Amino acid sequence: MNKGSQGKTNGVDIDRLLATIDAIQKTPSLATFKFRARNKWIAGGRNRSTVQQFYGAGQEDASRKGPFVMENDEPDVLLGSDAAANPVENVLHSLAGCLTTSLIYHAAARGVTIDAVESRLEGDLDLHGFLGLSEQVRNGFEGVRVTFRISSDASPEQLAELCKVAQARSPVFDIVTNRVPVTVSLEK
Amino acid sequence: MNKGSQGKTNGVDIDRLLATIDAIQKTPSLATFKFRARNKWIAGGRNRSTVQQFYGAGQEDASRKGPFVMENDEPDVLLGSDAAANPVENVLHSLAGCLTTSLIYHAAARGVTIDAVESRLEGDLDLHGFLGLSEQVRNGFEGVRVTFRISSDASPEQLAELCKVAQARSPVFDIVTNRVPVTVSLEK
Repeated sequence: MNKGSQGKTNGVDIDRLLATIDAIQKTPSLATFKFRARNKWIAGGRNRSTVQQFYGAGQEDASRKGPFVMENDEPDVLLGSDAAANPVENVLHSLAGCLTTSLIYHAAARGVTIDAVESRLEGDLDLHGFLGLSEQVRNGFEGVRVTFRISSDASPEQLAELCKVAQARSPVFDIVTNRVPVTVSLEK
Repeated sequence: MNKGSQGKTNGVDIDRLLATIDAIQKTPSLATFKFRARNKWIAGGRNRSTVQQFYGAGQEDASRKGPFVMENDEPDVLLGSDAAANPVENVLHSLAGCLTTSLIYHAAARGVTIDAVESRLEGDLDLHGFLGLSEQVRNGFEGVRVTFRISSDASPEQLAELCKVAQARSPVFDIVTNRVPVTVSLEK
């Protein structure tokens, strides 16, 4: 089950992961990343983001040959053209992916082989917030529930522990469950 | 400039928007939505979400004929196969889209026509958190900067006010800047 430090575990190159940790311990500034997105409004609730460049490991990354393109829209009942998932659904996508990746990478670092991971997410949102109809109702999710199903030869205790590690280490779990300072400016 | 209450402003059907607000004021439970995503791990940092069903306006929505499919991956330097933007980049995409949609809808509700909206986002992330190398460093973004460029015949004061309204009403801005309770469970 445990492929050890040779080759990959869960698709993660453990030698490179350990080398990355070693490099950051020697040169802490290598851990500094700046991630970026650009977005352009199309019409109504529809808009399109492009993601390509980022700064990390001490330099501007040049490995991506082209941009990733993602869209947001709103369903018909929210007056959109329903060409894509909406922004809060995309948050659930980000949260699911980040918890999964955190679980997989930390499992790999411990030598635990995972065969399959699936998750279902549901978030509660009350439109009174967005529409400005009540100051007692928040704009965003009032709560989110995540349910994981994991296939692995690892013990139930190990899998429960990995679920905790995923929450303890996931960047998007932190972003959603804690406050991030966001500054918005308008170019003249 | 202002297309008034006939037809659409900024691609938003104002008559339907006003009818929605009216319906929610008469029947508050129509504002209750539940948004959902499912995610499946592929390998390493790569995973795939599907988004289709949601509950809202008093019923399970049946208008979407198929799922939206979105992926997460990690760039090479983060040991991924770089098949998609990563989860924190997808958060920037969600945030950009939600602020833009909030600005556009609330502009439409005020009769302000917008010609173009573009935004650039940058978020700072220190890998010491994700890797568990420091308890002093958070896992998620330490800060996010959003810069808007808006083309409109509206006055600079109106555009500045719309930028504030977007922040005051955007669900994803609330999710990122405030705490959302998230519960994670593991199916046996």
